[in-house]
Amino acid sequence: MEIPKDHPRYKSLMTRERLAHMVEEGLVTPTGLISHGRGEAYDYLMGEKSIPPALEAEKVAAAYLLRAKNPVVCVNGNAAALDPENLIALAKAVPAKMEVNLFHRTPERMEGLISYLESKGAENVLGREPDCRIQGLNHDRALCTKEGIFDSDVIVVPIEDGDRAEALVSMGKVVISIDLNPLSRTSCKATVPISDEMTRALENIIRFIGELRGHDEIILKVIEQYDSSANRRETVECICESLMSGFGSGDD
Amino acid sequence: MEIPKDHPRYKSLMTRERLAHMVEEGLVTPTGLISHGRGEAYDYLMGEKSIPPALEAEKVAAAYLLRAKNPVVCVNGNAAALDPENLIALAKAVPAKMEVNLFHRTPERMEGLISYLESKGAENVLGREPDCRIQGLNHDRALCTKEGIFDSDVIVVPIEDGDRAEALVSMGKVVISIDLNPLSRTSCKATVPISDEMTRALENIIRFIGELRGHDEIILKVIEQYDSSANRRETVECICESLMSGFGSGDD
Repeated sequence: MEIPKDHPRYKSLMTRERLAHMVEEGLVTPTGLISHGRGEAYDYLMGEKSIPPALEAEKVAAAYLLRAKNPVVCVNGNAAALDPENLIALAKAVPAKMEVNLFHRTPERMEGLISYLESKGAENVLGREPDCRIQGLNHDRALCTKEGIFDSDVIVVPIEDGDRAEALVSMGKVVISIDLNPLSRTSCKATVPISDEMTRALENIIRFIGELRGHDEIILKVIEQYDSSANRRETVECICESLMSGFGSGDD
Repeated sequence: MEIPKDHPRYKSLMTRERLAHMVEEGLVTPTGLISHGRGEAYDYLMGEKSIPPALEAEKVAAAYLLRAKNPVVCVNGNAAALDPENLIALAKAVPAKMEVNLFHRTPERMEGLISYLESKGAENVLGREPDCRIQGLNHDRALCTKEGIFDSDVIVVPIEDGDRAEALVSMGKVVISIDLNPLSRTSCKATVPISDEMTRALENIIRFIGELRGHDEIILKVIEQYDSSANRRETVECICESLMSGFGSGDD
């Protein structure tokens, strides 16, 4: 479908067309598109840039990942479709394992997504053969691997379902969420909720990992000084300032 | 795809599945799902109810429709999929013509949507044979009929593209938009921007039509006292209050 090039939101429309194409390929679910739309709305409200509280949370995420014993980057359909390269780059930078974990799980989608990540350079992607369940969840979305999600101590969950984020926290894990809505259940429950667009968040975390690595005292300080509730409140204040100034007027 | 019944957002998830199903039938486009997601985000922020400035705008919309010479209710794929019954009910209440107008236009989608509306009880739905263009737009989205959109004086556009809303205003029409984002280009350009979920908006307008009909002095007063900029500002203030109180926490 052709988008008129003079449309003021041409770039954003093209990203949407790309995601829509991934639905045809079976990697993204139709409801995953609705979820992307919700994210877009919050991104407009933040001016489509990493606001200061997001940058702070991204630094804290880097600090936790550097201290982790078994860090895991969790990948679902939307995340893989939006930016496989940076998900793989983060896993390599930490280094962390990668595991595909789907809300709408079928063997075909699982295989399709893992193959897609492998075609982009990912190695040893977990998830094909789940042998454990996330406690407190029914439904196939509970399935995971013991060596990955189940035994992880620090886990990055981009664009996560609220139930699953909560269940992972209940299992005692440090949950780093990337979710543009600062008031979502995922953001409310996560240890380190990051309200930022996924590509920007991943690139910032990777940069902070490079800056913090080897500086153990600073890493500890970054973690100690962080207050997730205060951070979320700052995020909401940034959104309100943006709204009141009419800044988020780019939507169509 | 089965949704677990104990999911806190079961109802919202079911609506999403329904829209996703309409994509399979070719009535809704995949990018229409993304657009629905953006709307959902704003609806959460407004507490999923008609806030006072929305009710005011809905009353003004009813007043304009009652004074119109050639009112038209414009219907696109998302609108038809979300609530054909209330779109038809509004057209009958005014009475107004209905015209299908698509951003992603193909003869098959056009015929599919008009047939769908007719199966729900709509009569004389325009759009099958466009004989005019909305001025100032390139692309097939400019196509319309002379007896409907082109010659209309008051036009209701639920979930409209910003470019088209602007073009219709430039043609001198009273444009009543239904768009959950009060800062969208559509809301900024429309004569009467309504920031409310479509079903709630349509039901409220229909109710106000019943209340106002025959009261010409009140109708004039309602229109005269309305200030669309002030109304949009109030909407944004309501959203900020909701955000700051952590009210919009139902998202997943």
